[in-house]
Amino acid sequence: MRYRDSGVDIDKANEAKKAIRSALQRTWGAEVLSDVGHFGGLFRMPALREPVLVSSMDGVGTKLLVARMAERYDTVGQCLVNHCVNDILVQGARPLFFLDYIAAGRLRPEVVAGLVEGLARACEENGCALIGGETAEMPDLYQRDDFDLAGAIVGVVERDALVDGSGIRPGDRVLALPSSGLHTNGYSLARRIVFDVMGQGIDDRVGELGCTVGEELLKVHRSYLREVTALMEAAPVKGLAHVTGGGVVENLPRVLPVGCGARVEKGTWPVPPVFPFLQRHGEVDEAEMYRVFNMGLGMLAVVGAEDAARVPSSLAGTPLYAVGEVVAGAGVAFS
Amino acid sequence: MRYRDSGVDIDKANEAKKAIRSALQRTWGAEVLSDVGHFGGLFRMPALREPVLVSSMDGVGTKLLVARMAERYDTVGQCLVNHCVNDILVQGARPLFFLDYIAAGRLRPEVVAGLVEGLARACEENGCALIGGETAEMPDLYQRDDFDLAGAIVGVVERDALVDGSGIRPGDRVLALPSSGLHTNGYSLARRIVFDVMGQGIDDRVGELGCTVGEELLKVHRSYLREVTALMEAAPVKGLAHVTGGGVVENLPRVLPVGCGARVEKGTWPVPPVFPFLQRHGEVDEAEMYRVFNMGLGMLAVVGAEDAARVPSSLAGTPLYAVGEVVAGAGVAFS
Repeated sequence: MRYRDSGVDIDKANEAKKAIRSALQRTWGAEVLSDVGHFGGLFRMPALREPVLVSSMDGVGTKLLVARMAERYDTVGQCLVNHCVNDILVQGARPLFFLDYIAAGRLRPEVVAGLVEGLARACEENGCALIGGETAEMPDLYQRDDFDLAGAIVGVVERDALVDGSGIRPGDRVLALPSSGLHTNGYSLARRIVFDVMGQGIDDRVGELGCTVGEELLKVHRSYLREVTALMEAAPVKGLAHVTGGGVVENLPRVLPVGCGARVEKGTWPVPPVFPFLQRHGEVDEAEMYRVFNMGLGMLAVVGAEDAARVPSSLAGTPLYAVGEVVAGAGVAFS
Repeated sequence: MRYRDSGVDIDKANEAKKAIRSALQRTWGAEVLSDVGHFGGLFRMPALREPVLVSSMDGVGTKLLVARMAERYDTVGQCLVNHCVNDILVQGARPLFFLDYIAAGRLRPEVVAGLVEGLARACEENGCALIGGETAEMPDLYQRDDFDLAGAIVGVVERDALVDGSGIRPGDRVLALPSSGLHTNGYSLARRIVFDVMGQGIDDRVGELGCTVGEELLKVHRSYLREVTALMEAAPVKGLAHVTGGGVVENLPRVLPVGCGARVEKGTWPVPPVFPFLQRHGEVDEAEMYRVFNMGLGMLAVVGAEDAARVPSSLAGTPLYAVGEVVAGAGVAFS
């Protein structure tokens, strides 16, 4: 009996790993000390006064299933990196490096190449080194064409520049940067509505969305690194919330101190058409929509009222909306 | 339609996350600045002269399927952490923090609790903070009871203490620390032999192994942090190889400079009974055994011949075997 008989092909796995290496190296600056074949990724720590490492692990959820239907894998790779960049950005950190995990029933070169191309592209855009990862072929754990994708990011921030929401007070303003659509959350519900309730095909064109189902559902989760960096240069930022699973309702309170809630005024930002589209066809309650989806609000920033009055109306080309304010209380109320 | 109708229960997921938080916090020292609810994990960087961050991402492969058969989840959690600790240890790094990824068709509290208990236990043992992670319920991506587990580790080493194999010369000695069994590699083949060829059940007792099938196959992948730290204090270590997938044959050459191979002498270390057991029942060729399994060699260290003569015969209670030497050439030859 050979290892190959058990469904695992080490040679093929090694080939896939070589393809990955070359994509990785595109993202490597002088800080990366690794060479091919090392066990771990080596990253020269930048010199800071009192550095705090900020890290996060995430997946892209069932957006992967949409990628599989469309046979397009790069955008979910970008989504994963951008999601992670945003998750550490909310504490003021800039990304240093990223590691990925790809597991599949069988390693299909076009899938791995697509995913890694997307990971590398987003890492380049965010000035982040794609420093390593794991690619696992597990024929008995995943169905033949199933796969999963996860990733971990490590970034850094000066301790005295940590953003933690502790200075937030009633009267502060809530500013928002727009999302590009669903980002990576709510896909179980979105897929059920589009494919099961509506019976749409992945390549069907939807007039009100101005694109195909696949194009809409695979839109890249935005990174807000440039915008938030610009905002921080324009005004002191007291708190940041990345709007992911649980929507504004669950994510904004995570940065508000005890005794503070928020009032968000509907109509102050444009809701991308995909949300009313899903709400209408899925007959989803409005409150549930706000608990599952970002509703067009990708990143929220809390700044003092006076600072809010003088920040620019757009950052790095992206509009910045004043969507609400901090109030005494708890939770988020929409008006 | 509610999100719950699509198969995802945010409340239940939040409950599971709370249980995870409490296990995480057991592993947190003063360096961890995170508090519950933060988006990213915060770790105060230790003060070093010229720190290099060493990172690695890994999974535990289909050892997970054995855990599921045995309904015992803690040991695979330990395996994952220890595997990652070893992967950065080979470059001389000590672990700082770890992040996990658990994905499942449905989140079963006993599975998540078992995995996280094992992760936390191993993190405590290795002085490593379990600083964060992601738990994802994806009913359409994973079969109902399927799940996967991956993790990322970040450690640190002074740049001038990096172990990279570059000083290795013919005549250097290869020392070995024993494995506890299969560790986390070769499970696709091992499971095929034990369950398909032999028809064994997970709770069947095997005389020559002195335990049940489940106990043997779930033995914890060892961490060599203590032993390697002690070895480094005893003598200059030129290179280290963690023996994972591909066995000694593929992993030792990863640290040997061009022009160097190794000769490893069989009979110089005890081969745990699980390997001859699998070889005989699976009718596996000897060379294939050495390409798939660690064969009892968990961690290899290369030291100069004179240093090898004076290192202790055991480290932190673990025997240290002289198993071979570096020769001019390439690859690994067994004699």
